Amino acid sequence: MSWLAVAPTSHFSIANIPFGVISTAADASPRPAVAIGDYALDLKAFAAGGGFAGSADIGKHAAVFSAPSLNGFAALGRPFHRAVRQYLQAVLGAQTEHPGLLRDNERLRAAALVPRSEARNHLPLAVGDYTDFYAGKNHAYNVGALFRGPANALQPNYLHLPVAYHGRASSVVVSGTPIRRPWGQVLRDPKAEPKVPVLATAEKLDLELEMGMFICRENAMGSPVPVDEADDYVFGYVLMNDWSARDLQAWEYVPLGPFTAKNMGTSISAWVVLADALADAKGPGIPNDTPLLPYLQEKTKDNVLGIELEVDLITANGNKTTISRTNSRNLLWSWPQMIAHHSISGCNLRPGDLFGSGTISGEGSTSQGSLLEQTQGGKKALTLQGGEERRFLQDGDTLVIRGWAGKEGALVGFGEVSGTIQPALPLF
Amino acid sequence: MSWLAVAPTSHFSIANIPFGVISTAADASPRPAVAIGDYALDLKAFAAGGGFAGSADIGKHAAVFSAPSLNGFAALGRPFHRAVRQYLQAVLGAQTEHPGLLRDNERLRAAALVPRSEARNHLPLAVGDYTDFYAGKNHAYNVGALFRGPANALQPNYLHLPVAYHGRASSVVVSGTPIRRPWGQVLRDPKAEPKVPVLATAEKLDLELEMGMFICRENAMGSPVPVDEADDYVFGYVLMNDWSARDLQAWEYVPLGPFTAKNMGTSISAWVVLADALADAKGPGIPNDTPLLPYLQEKTKDNVLGIELEVDLITANGNKTTISRTNSRNLLWSWPQMIAHHSISGCNLRPGDLFGSGTISGEGSTSQGSLLEQTQGGKKALTLQGGEERRFLQDGDTLVIRGWAGKEGALVGFGEVSGTIQPALPLF
Repeated sequence: MSWLAVAPTSHFSIANIPFGVISTAADASPRPAVAIGDYALDLKAFAAGGGFAGSADIGKHAAVFSAPSLNGFAALGRPFHRAVRQYLQAVLGAQTEHPGLLRDNERLRAAALVPRSEARNHLPLAVGDYTDFYAGKNHAYNVGALFRGPANALQPNYLHLPVAYHGRASSVVVSGTPIRRPWGQVLRDPKAEPKVPVLATAEKLDLELEMGMFICRENAMGSPVPVDEADDYVFGYVLMNDWSARDLQAWEYVPLGPFTAKNMGTSISAWVVLADALADAKGPGIPNDTPLLPYLQEKTKDNVLGIELEVDLITANGNKTTISRTNSRNLLWSWPQMIAHHSISGCNLRPGDLFGSGTISGEGSTSQGSLLEQTQGGKKALTLQGGEERRFLQDGDTLVIRGWAGKEGALVGFGEVSGTIQPALPLF
Repeated sequence: MSWLAVAPTSHFSIANIPFGVISTAADASPRPAVAIGDYALDLKAFAAGGGFAGSADIGKHAAVFSAPSLNGFAALGRPFHRAVRQYLQAVLGAQTEHPGLLRDNERLRAAALVPRSEARNHLPLAVGDYTDFYAGKNHAYNVGALFRGPANALQPNYLHLPVAYHGRASSVVVSGTPIRRPWGQVLRDPKAEPKVPVLATAEKLDLELEMGMFICRENAMGSPVPVDEADDYVFGYVLMNDWSARDLQAWEYVPLGPFTAKNMGTSISAWVVLADALADAKGPGIPNDTPLLPYLQEKTKDNVLGIELEVDLITANGNKTTISRTNSRNLLWSWPQMIAHHSISGCNLRPGDLFGSGTISGEGSTSQGSLLEQTQGGKKALTLQGGEERRFLQDGDTLVIRGWAGKEGALVGFGEVSGTIQPALPLF
């Protein structure tokens, strides 16, 4: 419990202490903060006001809390993240040993405790490389079945390795950033010959419900990360919506994968939940009977992160429908397995690299993480509250993904990642 | 002509003035430089010694020449690059109007003119996103024919859009950096069922002869770049070798494209040749009879960059063979068309983004840009000088790519991009 009033339903309990980057009307420079209840604790102001006086080890690195991103903090490694989180829990705890640092320090409370409603969130880290995995087996199966039939739904490699591709880092944006409906090449009639595309605005705009993970540690080029050491490379987690234009994707993706169909934007939640805060949220993922090659065999069993997930679609008319409820246990691979595979050929990871899990779908249509699956490629409309229908996203639609672990009073949550579809602009 | 002695065969004539990043024994901090003949002109030392005294417009931005990368210089835009290049040509020219700045200034010559043999090259720009196109039609056809037969060699989208995928930015390295033979999953017998991969070191390690292009200007997310304005986004060009492990690639690449097979390293030449320096090297590319959608139609015809290219393979025994001679005109798309397509769905480009052209192959085997093509997937060995044979690269092999435009005495060249294959390390 904290001496601050934190609602039992808050995602940002004292058990959490997630890190983000904020700015305010009083100080427009983006800077690190943690979320606690309805507040953000501005770590730049906290450090400047002597808040880290109780820890010399943290104090000597306090410059990272004046930076415009969390990259410097992340690069200091998991023992440092752990020390800062525990220190802040001690400062904010009801039985704090440091009452004078913040609780009883009216001036520092006024300077550093910002109502989150008055803070603007920025991208928490400058994204280095962004890699999107495809670890949601149910999603991979559903999409494969739609395009290639159930017999060939999963490719032969799928159960042997965490399939992944590189995504676009520049267009990763923080929750709340609008997403512009894209233009691109579309093949209207895939059966007509010759195949001649048109230039059009995407009509099959979709969400992809994913988890994201930020890397905090570098491996040398040429040196794979052993799977049982990979957890040391995990800074923390975010919610992710990997917006996708299915009509652009269908035409462009052979033979090298999706490109313009995904490049218009990928949204992540504003607060990075540290790896430590979710250490107890691991459990079994989707079973895989396939014998794994040694570099993917983990000593730690049941190592898949389990986050409860919900997706709301809110139309321009204000109708709100929860279109999906699922859990991130619906993944075939753990984050350490993804790190081990990513680096097996010698690829160097760097602090600030972002991994996406791939779309997370449960087994029924109400637990699927994309409209592509829920509407069977647009064939079957989804009926929303108020009677509106959707096959794909319309202009003005807002998507909100929420995620959390733990129980009321000690929730470790992400808040939300949201984005609203803006109409396409005229081209040139 | 320069007052410096520049050999007529030098790639770095006064008509060139390419930009890179160097360090030296006397000053270990990486900093911008230009190449001229056998020298590097250290721009940090040149600026500090008053070298830009002849131009207030350049002088006020001289801080970019103390940075550890060219990103800041690139972001100042093409008119600034042009002004700096022309100023340096004037300072270095035989008829210089500024003889006192460098030519007759012994102290500054000693401080700023470094023999290139004594300078270490670093990556010229911090790479933002790295996108690899597939614009080498002959290569795409040859590889497609190898895997799918001649009738289906090119996918239906190929002639309509510049096919591309995202590559790994963290493992882009400067010429001379060794490349470690990678580990990965390999399917030994593609015809056996069930398909069970092994963990092995890649046996089908290959080069890919490409050109690279760095971006210097940002477009807003959601705002495509018109093709006829796209040349303003081009900072300059480099040679590129996109090392590829064909056995890893064959197993992993469905359905989302190459991943671990390319992530172990991509080499680029050290000196970025500015867009202006190659303005006269444009000409017709590979003809395309397919009617293009409006956003790919250029007012400027024959806009494909033409660079003469040569590839040497030097074995551990010292045998050197020129295995390919070709020209970068063997591309289906111009760089402006690639920029227009990359941004059509709203993707924001940023200074420091790197584009690869895709493998450049002419029409005969001695002009192909990969061993995959030259040996027909390893079926037909290539005989080297001294009688050695290669199907794919062996440990100790060094690949050297050279490229240039223009004529002796006024060559605008890249020098080379080289890399040597190191044996795989034991795994863990």
